[in-house]
Amino acid sequence: MHTPATLVRGGTSKCWLFHQVHVPTELGALEKLLVAAYGATDPVELDGVGGATPTTSKAAVVSASPEPDTDIDYLFAQVGIGTGSVEWTSNCGNCATGVALYAVAKGLVPITGDRTRVVMRNMNTGAVLEGLVDTTGGVAHDFGDQTVPGTRAGGVAVGLTFRDPAGRTTGSLLPTGSTAQELRIGAADPILVSMVDAGAPVVLVDATSAARTGAETLEQMRADAPWLRTVRHAAAPLMGLLKPGEEPGDAVPKVGLVGRPVPYTTTLGERVAAQDYDISVRMLTMNAPHPAIGLTSAVAVAAAGLLEGSVVSRAAGGPTEEWLRLGTPAGVIAVRCSDLSDGRPGRVTVQRAARLLADARIYVPEPGRPQAA
Amino acid sequence: MHTPATLVRGGTSKCWLFHQVHVPTELGALEKLLVAAYGATDPVELDGVGGATPTTSKAAVVSASPEPDTDIDYLFAQVGIGTGSVEWTSNCGNCATGVALYAVAKGLVPITGDRTRVVMRNMNTGAVLEGLVDTTGGVAHDFGDQTVPGTRAGGVAVGLTFRDPAGRTTGSLLPTGSTAQELRIGAADPILVSMVDAGAPVVLVDATSAARTGAETLEQMRADAPWLRTVRHAAAPLMGLLKPGEEPGDAVPKVGLVGRPVPYTTTLGERVAAQDYDISVRMLTMNAPHPAIGLTSAVAVAAAGLLEGSVVSRAAGGPTEEWLRLGTPAGVIAVRCSDLSDGRPGRVTVQRAARLLADARIYVPEPGRPQAA
Repeated sequence: MHTPATLVRGGTSKCWLFHQVHVPTELGALEKLLVAAYGATDPVELDGVGGATPTTSKAAVVSASPEPDTDIDYLFAQVGIGTGSVEWTSNCGNCATGVALYAVAKGLVPITGDRTRVVMRNMNTGAVLEGLVDTTGGVAHDFGDQTVPGTRAGGVAVGLTFRDPAGRTTGSLLPTGSTAQELRIGAADPILVSMVDAGAPVVLVDATSAARTGAETLEQMRADAPWLRTVRHAAAPLMGLLKPGEEPGDAVPKVGLVGRPVPYTTTLGERVAAQDYDISVRMLTMNAPHPAIGLTSAVAVAAAGLLEGSVVSRAAGGPTEEWLRLGTPAGVIAVRCSDLSDGRPGRVTVQRAARLLADARIYVPEPGRPQAA
Repeated sequence: MHTPATLVRGGTSKCWLFHQVHVPTELGALEKLLVAAYGATDPVELDGVGGATPTTSKAAVVSASPEPDTDIDYLFAQVGIGTGSVEWTSNCGNCATGVALYAVAKGLVPITGDRTRVVMRNMNTGAVLEGLVDTTGGVAHDFGDQTVPGTRAGGVAVGLTFRDPAGRTTGSLLPTGSTAQELRIGAADPILVSMVDAGAPVVLVDATSAARTGAETLEQMRADAPWLRTVRHAAAPLMGLLKPGEEPGDAVPKVGLVGRPVPYTTTLGERVAAQDYDISVRMLTMNAPHPAIGLTSAVAVAAAGLLEGSVVSRAAGGPTEEWLRLGTPAGVIAVRCSDLSDGRPGRVTVQRAARLLADARIYVPEPGRPQAA
């Protein structure tokens, strides 16, 4: 079987995009197809197009949206590496920027002058996002010079806005009702966390309360991944993310540390001063240190920053205003909250970049045939 | 710029194949194109189609051969990860099996019944190889059930034969004139090595002489990589692989340990008994532990096995005959030497498998524009 697909880089992620007309609508059949196409029963994804890391083993299915005022629907898939399964419960902002560029480049939305707006509905979470794609000269561009923290590679500029992001998954910005609360992990002293649903459901640990800084190296984060996983699993039921009897997974909630700004060196070797940003953030992606931060997590951090007493506003020295600058391992990412009402942001925007890497026809083995494992 | 290419899995390698008509013939321009297409200035190859590991950052340029009795010419490229350069000095047997399948599937050679022979010339080394591709029913197959050690994934069966492999790079099977000799690395006691040119130039270390076993785990090999690199660099000038004033590189000679057979567990978790194979082999690929063994290295080990006094025949308990079974981390690989004359094999054959993964059109950024680094 041959399935058309396009490989895009959205920010610091690589993602294969499939048009809905070429793949099954039924989720089980789609999962089998993706696992077979990626070679995903194998930890190195040798027998397929997967990239064998969390940020390069992603997919999305794209279609024209039947919704009014919405251009594109997309379903995001975090293709498990070596698990033979797919996580369907989260969104990916990086991939959304790739979807916006793809929609313009493949003619799914008409170009409207120097910038073209693509309104997208994420089918995993119900989130509505806008991609504002650089179409300078009234044409689609394959290449561009916009960069994002974490890579020196240029791409086409895409402004990504999350519309009314609060409570999309759980129904509430603060699913436990608290801006911050103590959480006990094993026999250790309780830690202070904020559990927030905006962009994605996220549990943010006050680094100081856990004898950490929020400015850990990727190496330190790797060592801390098992502990952060137990924090995720403790938070999941409190946030209402588990069906009765269900075991916690590795995709939701997102989990990470926040702390005060301190001087540090990015993974590209650039020095960052404490006054260059407002808050230190170190996240996991699945069970590995995130090289920067997932954009949906950045939305949650920014939304929490607006709230008095959250672990974010504590570390930032008080509730934040329109702009929040996040210090991540890859560098500083600025997030803008606007259209505020009752402490909730109506719009959260980040400047990003995307690039088409390849148009392909993937040879997909018959699902279920023996694969690497 | 858009460049057509096909991603193949050959055995345990992934390799993008380009037809010569679509890429520059001049090596410098070709190198720039591959580095840009793979995003190879960046250690994670984020902004391109590279796989960011030595076995998934390979390419080959394929064309019809002008030589009589030869079907296909191919030039192999080991695309450096994070270096922004390409190693042109070695061949890759896994990729050759992919080239043979591609040649049949894309109609570059006519199908001749249930098996189709593809005679290939490797332009890096001058090696001539035959791929015997399964074309059961007189048709090309996209999928198959043949497996190779190191993966459970099935592919199309390809028998790969190296024709007259001795001395292709240096002019001599034994470029130093010795079947085995002592080599001094730093201040330590000398080690016993065989320096052999067959399939590829390879320096094989007698594991016992270096207080090792030849059956090391990948973890142990990772720790030993810097030491093995010094062995490679010491052997390179002795084998005549350096031009005057040139620094040793990381591609040639191949380097590894050989030792007696012992019981061990493969990386797929299968138990192997000492009587199931003839010799333990642990190789590096570039500066990382090879998950199995490069086929060109397997040819060198088998050719050395035929020679009295080589480190291979010492570990095997005497010179080997037609078949040699190599115990690698991924499992046992059987190599057949035939058409022997004067202790040199006229043909060396391994049973392999290959699969087409994707046909693509790669968006290649203008070479030299800023990329990830």
